[in-house]
Amino acid sequence: MAKKLTSREEDYSQWYNEIVQGADLAENSGVRGCMVIKPYGYAIWEKMQAELDKKFKETGHENAYFPLFIPKSYFSKEASHVDGFAKECAVVTHYRLKNDPNGKGVIVDTDAKLEEELIVRPTSETIIWDTYRKWIQSYRDLPILVNQWANVVRWEMRTRLFLRTAEFLWQEGHTAHATKKEAIAETEQMIDVYADFAQDFMAMPVIKGVKSENERFAGALETYCIEALMQDGKALQAGTSHFLGQNFAKAFDVKFSNKEGKKEYVWATSWGVSTRLMGALVMTHSDDKGLVLPPKLAPYQVVIVPIYKGDEQLEKVSEVALKVKKNLEDKGISVKFDNRHTYKPGWKFAEYELKGVPLRLALGARDLENGTIEVARRDTLEKETYQIKEIENKVEHLLEKIQENLYRKAFDFRAEKTYKADSKEKFVELINKGGFVYAHWDGTFETEELIKKETKATIRCIPIDAKKESGACLFSGKPSNKRVLFAKAY
Amino acid sequence: MAKKLTSREEDYSQWYNEIVQGADLAENSGVRGCMVIKPYGYAIWEKMQAELDKKFKETGHENAYFPLFIPKSYFSKEASHVDGFAKECAVVTHYRLKNDPNGKGVIVDTDAKLEEELIVRPTSETIIWDTYRKWIQSYRDLPILVNQWANVVRWEMRTRLFLRTAEFLWQEGHTAHATKKEAIAETEQMIDVYADFAQDFMAMPVIKGVKSENERFAGALETYCIEALMQDGKALQAGTSHFLGQNFAKAFDVKFSNKEGKKEYVWATSWGVSTRLMGALVMTHSDDKGLVLPPKLAPYQVVIVPIYKGDEQLEKVSEVALKVKKNLEDKGISVKFDNRHTYKPGWKFAEYELKGVPLRLALGARDLENGTIEVARRDTLEKETYQIKEIENKVEHLLEKIQENLYRKAFDFRAEKTYKADSKEKFVELINKGGFVYAHWDGTFETEELIKKETKATIRCIPIDAKKESGACLFSGKPSNKRVLFAKAY
Repeated sequence: MAKKLTSREEDYSQWYNEIVQGADLAENSGVRGCMVIKPYGYAIWEKMQAELDKKFKETGHENAYFPLFIPKSYFSKEASHVDGFAKECAVVTHYRLKNDPNGKGVIVDTDAKLEEELIVRPTSETIIWDTYRKWIQSYRDLPILVNQWANVVRWEMRTRLFLRTAEFLWQEGHTAHATKKEAIAETEQMIDVYADFAQDFMAMPVIKGVKSENERFAGALETYCIEALMQDGKALQAGTSHFLGQNFAKAFDVKFSNKEGKKEYVWATSWGVSTRLMGALVMTHSDDKGLVLPPKLAPYQVVIVPIYKGDEQLEKVSEVALKVKKNLEDKGISVKFDNRHTYKPGWKFAEYELKGVPLRLALGARDLENGTIEVARRDTLEKETYQIKEIENKVEHLLEKIQENLYRKAFDFRAEKTYKADSKEKFVELINKGGFVYAHWDGTFETEELIKKETKATIRCIPIDAKKESGACLFSGKPSNKRVLFAKAY
Repeated sequence: MAKKLTSREEDYSQWYNEIVQGADLAENSGVRGCMVIKPYGYAIWEKMQAELDKKFKETGHENAYFPLFIPKSYFSKEASHVDGFAKECAVVTHYRLKNDPNGKGVIVDTDAKLEEELIVRPTSETIIWDTYRKWIQSYRDLPILVNQWANVVRWEMRTRLFLRTAEFLWQEGHTAHATKKEAIAETEQMIDVYADFAQDFMAMPVIKGVKSENERFAGALETYCIEALMQDGKALQAGTSHFLGQNFAKAFDVKFSNKEGKKEYVWATSWGVSTRLMGALVMTHSDDKGLVLPPKLAPYQVVIVPIYKGDEQLEKVSEVALKVKKNLEDKGISVKFDNRHTYKPGWKFAEYELKGVPLRLALGARDLENGTIEVARRDTLEKETYQIKEIENKVEHLLEKIQENLYRKAFDFRAEKTYKADSKEKFVELINKGGFVYAHWDGTFETEELIKKETKATIRCIPIDAKKESGACLFSGKPSNKRVLFAKAY
């Protein structure tokens, strides 16, 4: 606590790790690449889940649950999918341990070898489409609009808390439709849901677009994404929604009888966001003093710290503090009253600053005499003294302002760091500076790879609202009809 | 749909499977022992989760998330725990697949063998106590009151949907305390939470007790449980809460400095309920026509089926139906209006009967003329016609009555099937008949095993409210000072 954080300027990556751990969001576990999400971090994730789940249900989706394990052979059924996913993954080969005859704990029982290995799901298209074959016979069974909240495992070699972990938590929507048009509409609807969530709740502006063919999800015909800009000028893909065409229906033989009684393959989408959003949230708003949380996702929006000497003062202060707490809670505001006598007020102030609580209220004996209360904003670090009798309305108003201010700040930051490049030299310069760079690209895989090799920048997306504009690819000189969005990325 | 269910009398086990699958609760997947929880089943589980989670938070607990994988060596640290859990489990030995050189899909890459195998968690005490060592230094860090919602895997040889599956969903609370007294109070508090939930929401009466030493959780000093009686006279353990003493603290070296600065081992509890509760819910209330759901856990409490000929009638009926729906929803009642024209009313009636929807409202053109609406109760199968203008109050009242009636029915059933046995012959006769049998037992492991071998009955629990009563063990003749609860069990 006493230790100052490494600043962003000094070492951005170190700053990030110190916040994630210092603010009690997550930590590394004894298992390589797997994190422990601590209660405070998990409470933020629960708030994200609740809002997303509400939006999914409002758009007609239901939750379900599919197996953690996927038989190895399932992955081979969709050709491009296996290349993208079945390689770096956790493989279950045995189902029993036995006592070590040498008395050293337990060892794998080689007699208990599985006939077919099981993969711990890296994503669930295969097991779900194997199931949908049983659920879908007729057009009357469509659409299927299902979502799953689950853990998945991808064996990443270099991991970072929330941003890239071997195991992570996510939701994966998997829908089945009678027509291509309906499936595309679903794909687009869900990227809109994600964009709205990012902007309205995370206070994080995003750019909606589609991925280049090369960056598409393995098995998709089109991948929509939302891209956000972090404070170090690197982009972060915050959510994806895939139009899968009939690829999985063909791989798993899922057909339906249409109204004319003719058999057709089913159209599919899938879409997901993960605990990676936690990393995005940290990196979008936090400062050198610690985490900064948007009020809509803060586990508690307000903390009240009593300032007192002795039990008698604490009792008097508590009485008023608890009244304020109650009144705020009646307005739907979440409040923590920290009356622990094991920590001093100064320690608590630093703690809640590090934890990003949007508003800190301090109430002491002198305040009681004056009928006042001190309010500190986490986003601006401003302090102001208000009359206790007006505090509920002030707090409500301030929370709204903080939410807006965080979005505006992030929006302005992105605007400042968003460039257009019209020459290769300028492009390289801007990419190295950090930020989003709009530039012309010839649409080929070869040039995309060349740019990545030379500059480490990738095409984040082809923005949905990209305007037609004649130009020439900065690297190949070939014609291009719109700019695409480049950046170095997480 | 058209097919009649197998009756309970005919084949109880078959009846259960037909309901679980017919009512769209769950089905077997392509992965041995792993189930797919279908949207309708998952919606019930979500209701259970929401209520339990609320109760956990009200009692001061927070959620967190710990890794899916546990290094094999962790299990060897707590001696009795390894015997109970580390044997039949899924073992991850490799982290990569590669293309089969023979061109047949993918095979395990033998170069990617893990140095230490990872166990897919069957329960998380070991990984959590390995983490708590880092979280706990001082008495100020205690208590830790954490719960996790997660999937776990136990390699069961004979599986049954919900009741016993290789992968299942559950919550596991893991708490750490400074004193033995506090840990025991927590253990008892949580079994009370489970009992209240079972009775108030599942409408399922349970008996609270402690397990015999032999039936305790591997690593626990005391296991509290709730036991329910199913309609076939078999018992089902519906939840457990374990007082773990200092066993895991010692195994993982978790000590705290007390107020005097002295180091002490931390006291632990763990407690859990799982998707097994879904099986208990099905078997407690359902009948030969299908699932019967208590209103408090029904995904929708009311379904409205329009009866009409042609679009014009449908439009008129819909107008009124939607008004009724809206009014009911304003009272916090969940309503589905099934206006699908792809299915006939009779088909829908059978469907919702099978799915256990507590109240079915039918509204036709003639009803509109008379200002009436037909209401069918799922629990009693009674139909009655009410005035539309009084329907909201009627429905609210009926839902309360159904919830009460289901509990009362289950309670009466259990009372009828609960016996006392005072001779070995009587005991065997009653156990074979099915039901709970209170009998004297000498308290030894040997006798417990003998009874199990001879009668297949196990000690379900030593009830918390068992009265002191002198008697003699039915099997050994040795003295006993209270009766314990026996039954054949799931």
